[in-house]
Amino acid sequence: MPSPRIGVVGATGAVGKVTLGLLAERGYDDVRAFASARSAGSRVELGGEALVVEEATPEALSAGDLDLCLFSIGTSGSRELVPHAVRGGAIVVDKSSAYRLADGVPLVVPEVNGARALEHAGIVANPNCCTIPLTCVLEPLEEAARLRRVRVATYQSASGAGVESMERLAGERPDEHDLRADWDFDGVEYEEEEKLRLETRKILELPELPISPTCVRVPVMVGHAEAVWVETEQPLSPDDARSLLESAPSVRVVDGFPSPGQAAQTEDVLVGRIRRDPTEENGLALFLACDNLVKGAALNAIQIAELLLSRAALAA
Amino acid sequence: MPSPRIGVVGATGAVGKVTLGLLAERGYDDVRAFASARSAGSRVELGGEALVVEEATPEALSAGDLDLCLFSIGTSGSRELVPHAVRGGAIVVDKSSAYRLADGVPLVVPEVNGARALEHAGIVANPNCCTIPLTCVLEPLEEAARLRRVRVATYQSASGAGVESMERLAGERPDEHDLRADWDFDGVEYEEEEKLRLETRKILELPELPISPTCVRVPVMVGHAEAVWVETEQPLSPDDARSLLESAPSVRVVDGFPSPGQAAQTEDVLVGRIRRDPTEENGLALFLACDNLVKGAALNAIQIAELLLSRAALAA
Repeated sequence: MPSPRIGVVGATGAVGKVTLGLLAERGYDDVRAFASARSAGSRVELGGEALVVEEATPEALSAGDLDLCLFSIGTSGSRELVPHAVRGGAIVVDKSSAYRLADGVPLVVPEVNGARALEHAGIVANPNCCTIPLTCVLEPLEEAARLRRVRVATYQSASGAGVESMERLAGERPDEHDLRADWDFDGVEYEEEEKLRLETRKILELPELPISPTCVRVPVMVGHAEAVWVETEQPLSPDDARSLLESAPSVRVVDGFPSPGQAAQTEDVLVGRIRRDPTEENGLALFLACDNLVKGAALNAIQIAELLLSRAALAA
Repeated sequence: MPSPRIGVVGATGAVGKVTLGLLAERGYDDVRAFASARSAGSRVELGGEALVVEEATPEALSAGDLDLCLFSIGTSGSRELVPHAVRGGAIVVDKSSAYRLADGVPLVVPEVNGARALEHAGIVANPNCCTIPLTCVLEPLEEAARLRRVRVATYQSASGAGVESMERLAGERPDEHDLRADWDFDGVEYEEEEKLRLETRKILELPELPISPTCVRVPVMVGHAEAVWVETEQPLSPDDARSLLESAPSVRVVDGFPSPGQAAQTEDVLVGRIRRDPTEENGLALFLACDNLVKGAALNAIQIAELLLSRAALAA
């Protein structure tokens, strides 16, 4: 199979840059970078090589010369441009929330529900950066003991809110750092919390799973963490949960506290502090950390793409 | 009643400095500052006035010329020095964990169990900086609907770990900020988590209350926050919980996200995001923030002291 022709849309953003780095590392060389008119003409790096950023127009994306488009732009941008890329014949892996809950669009974490990716009609959605590590950890527990309830408090880094949020954090004095909740609020919960609940249910194929999330932005540059309480239908000891997670793909069990700094620039979901939740008979508590730009975003998209490419190669 | 003769032990620390500020604001003028030999001779501020720091020796503290000692030094220091201050006739309000769980030592949040302070035999313990705001919020819910289970994820600021931790945060580059768990670890949980559970049970006088805490240090300078899930025996709507909390002393219900930055340098426990925990029939979720140096430490100690002084005045 020839090298696939890949377009990275949103190439100047936090996720786009990580995407280009991972593509270069993995040896993809037929890559084009797209961004808004404002960034068109600037340069981004693919391995050692400079790519000139092209404007992401309907015409450019639908021209028929891309096999695969990795989108990491905002929801409204994706709504506008993704259909053009699909029309041009590309398979789109989209990071925005535009299509995640749409019927007929697979929402995929390859380790959890990779087979669903093959059911796409042009678009596969890449989940929220908190949903991806959470489902990697919940899936083996569900398989072994059935999930009854999940509560999760997040510690989300600035990079999850994009380059501007990173720049704001970088420009703050330390005594200005604060916790934030910089998401749309419906009066009861933040949109981020609804995403985390609805996406987790869709990926795990547990449409009624009770999940109560509290999402918080913390003054950390890269890496999201989550304090998780899980109640299972069948008993599951912390030791058994640990063994299950040690065998789970993309999960790395650590002995100490899994911090975002430790997870940053790695491809794994770090899990630790696996212990009994003493408040419930079948309760477990654990803590996870993950690079929100890597496995939480760019890497998961590339893994989805590779899963589709390998199936295409087998079919060819 | 003449102005009480007050000793602030640990006067150069993060809590000690806030204690001196609050004492000055409240008009106390017969105040002496004590600290370790290293800091003796340096100056601290009481209102506009400079106090020369005295060395906190057994002799100085037991000389019989102090009515009240507010200790905010480490646990081993308190174990060594508190008995001398008591021997000298002072009532001690101690911020360390040395005496908090000891039989016969009241552990007091005045709004929650103030009457217990009167049962002291020389020492009243001042709770952990996460326990104080948590019990302020749990008490009215317990009164109204009985607590069945509590889960809490903390977001604790650097100042909770003292001046050195604040200096480290101030000296970090923003991309070096990370979540930490800088407490003693017994292999399953951090000492901080055990404190939060055992102290909350003692203060609320619910020795079996199931509590599952996850404690995390965040790169914020001042102000602790907590994501809390509460299950009650009787049903309690979010609106009713809000009304109860609006009437609770030292609690201020806010409409948006209660952040540490908003709580900093205020005397209140901010509570918001009071909503159903949809995973449990009688479940509520909420978020709180509190200045860990003020209500979480220095102010609570002064309030305990004032409670004892007012009773002493009434009895005199």
